[in-house]
Amino acid sequence: MAASKKSTPTIAISMGDPAGIGPEVILKAIVAIGRRRSAPSIIVIGDLRAMQAAAARLKNVATPREWHRGESIPAPTKHVAVCATSKLSERAMRPGHPTVEGGGAAYDYIVRGARMALDGEVDALVTAPISKEWMNRAGHRFPGHSELLAQLSRTKLWRMTFAGGDLTLALVTTHMGLAKVASALTQRKILDTVNLLAAHLRTKFAIANPRIAVLGFNPHAGENGLFGDEEIRVIAPAIRRARREGIDAFGPLAPDTAFIRPDGKFGFDAAVAMYHDQGLIALKTLEFDRAVNVTLGLPFVRTSPDHGTAFDIAGKGVANPSSMIAAIDYASRAAAGREGANKRVAA
Amino acid sequence: MAASKKSTPTIAISMGDPAGIGPEVILKAIVAIGRRRSAPSIIVIGDLRAMQAAAARLKNVATPREWHRGESIPAPTKHVAVCATSKLSERAMRPGHPTVEGGGAAYDYIVRGARMALDGEVDALVTAPISKEWMNRAGHRFPGHSELLAQLSRTKLWRMTFAGGDLTLALVTTHMGLAKVASALTQRKILDTVNLLAAHLRTKFAIANPRIAVLGFNPHAGENGLFGDEEIRVIAPAIRRARREGIDAFGPLAPDTAFIRPDGKFGFDAAVAMYHDQGLIALKTLEFDRAVNVTLGLPFVRTSPDHGTAFDIAGKGVANPSSMIAAIDYASRAAAGREGANKRVAA
Repeated sequence: MAASKKSTPTIAISMGDPAGIGPEVILKAIVAIGRRRSAPSIIVIGDLRAMQAAAARLKNVATPREWHRGESIPAPTKHVAVCATSKLSERAMRPGHPTVEGGGAAYDYIVRGARMALDGEVDALVTAPISKEWMNRAGHRFPGHSELLAQLSRTKLWRMTFAGGDLTLALVTTHMGLAKVASALTQRKILDTVNLLAAHLRTKFAIANPRIAVLGFNPHAGENGLFGDEEIRVIAPAIRRARREGIDAFGPLAPDTAFIRPDGKFGFDAAVAMYHDQGLIALKTLEFDRAVNVTLGLPFVRTSPDHGTAFDIAGKGVANPSSMIAAIDYASRAAAGREGANKRVAA
Repeated sequence: MAASKKSTPTIAISMGDPAGIGPEVILKAIVAIGRRRSAPSIIVIGDLRAMQAAAARLKNVATPREWHRGESIPAPTKHVAVCATSKLSERAMRPGHPTVEGGGAAYDYIVRGARMALDGEVDALVTAPISKEWMNRAGHRFPGHSELLAQLSRTKLWRMTFAGGDLTLALVTTHMGLAKVASALTQRKILDTVNLLAAHLRTKFAIANPRIAVLGFNPHAGENGLFGDEEIRVIAPAIRRARREGIDAFGPLAPDTAFIRPDGKFGFDAAVAMYHDQGLIALKTLEFDRAVNVTLGLPFVRTSPDHGTAFDIAGKGVANPSSMIAAIDYASRAAAGREGANKRVAA
């Protein structure tokens, strides 16, 4: 069990859509991470033959081998442990040609990964990209990983968060039209986001008293109500409540200058953005291929690379594993931090 | 007259609020630019004694001297040409202590600079920061430089634009609450912005066929109407119209990935952003102290540094002239480009 593993966490990676770049970036990432002095133990939850085919296309950089429950999990070397969860047809494992069969299998990998994480069999779950469309066609109607994982773990309160470089950024609202964001912002939602972020930084990264930047909503953060009053009505009161609850929250900051780093680094431990592009324009502009998607609020650590299935380049060997490597690294650090934090509390 | 000056343009700089960092950053910028092999001719429109006092505080890096209309304008050396437009009291030139007298004088410098630019006496106007508040207290009710210059030059159609590094970015909407932007966006406004930007790049920078990126409004540019329909209703039709009018406009681009530069440079000649922070988060994050404000649509070139009066640090010698230098450089290039373009048309 993971809890006995000291500082080497165990990470499950769901393989994602078999026709996407998931198998390829997973293999490349495992090979890259396996070269390091210390690496987490990794299990791929997916299809053994699809992984073997991907390895063969990459000139056998590593050998996928079936892993059975209860066996010890090797640190990534030339062998890649695969928890075989599907037996895909040849057709379903053709890169670039998604199928209903593959969409259904991708769903199964996530469900199995979530179970393993909930049972404490692994310390974190990293998810390779799925196709919403093909998962839906297979009869599983979820907008994405986060909603599915929230349902599987009965989590009501969660937040989409992104991390890259020294920037960790939680979003109060995500995939909604920008015209609707103003009326969707509430003190409660902002406060919940600040709380989840603070708890994440405390328990997973052992930052006892995280400094959290809270962005405004309007240009110049409204300039005292001159351009919009969301700062006055909603954001500033939420920050005051967070501070009364003992969280070092700052703001509302003018959004356009919040990410400026005259000293070369971000002056806070994390930030809360009011809407999708407010956070992601800054993060992707600064850290375009190293951004990691993190779901706050789940009962386990979950990250994913910040890219899609990329069916157009799947199987060609050209997919960039940087974001997958970053997702595994972030999950490892968060999982190790959790153990550390737990031990400290227990001691 | 400027038109006879070949490739050395003449730049007027309005001194801005006498109690702000204007005099200091102007002097520092002129000294820095004067060290170069070729430099524009510069006239400061302001107060001779205030400029002399600022020079004395900076240990006489340069000597401000009165310049009279009709005299030749020296390239910046140890002498700085000042078109003396006020005779401020001692009180009004104390750094960090703005006055109604100073606010009124700052207004006069702009009016004089605009006249000189309109009369062709100078090729461009660079404006040092004013205090809206103190200009208003002096009885001149304008939200900022752009509105005042538009009125002085009877310009109806203009756009706030920012330039920094390889990014030039025009804003369709500026200082309004974000909740109001969706209903303020029209095809006409977007098309006007694209047209002004294309004309600017053609006439001032001799880019015959500029490639212009037009951003979406919603996350993922709406994902085919899934999160908001502004792209479908307004932005895409405006882009089609621009293309029919012969402009290489592209989009609507997903805002969060539009500024990613895998090859280290922006793939377009310029971009059009739908709202203030959409453009400025990217620009300021990338180019925080080198951003220049440019007003498109005026009958003359006008730029300004992208910072305020900074009364809190005025007179201390610590103000950073980078943005003022960038504003003078941008104005010089645009003014020289214009001459070049005119000559080509005339030949």
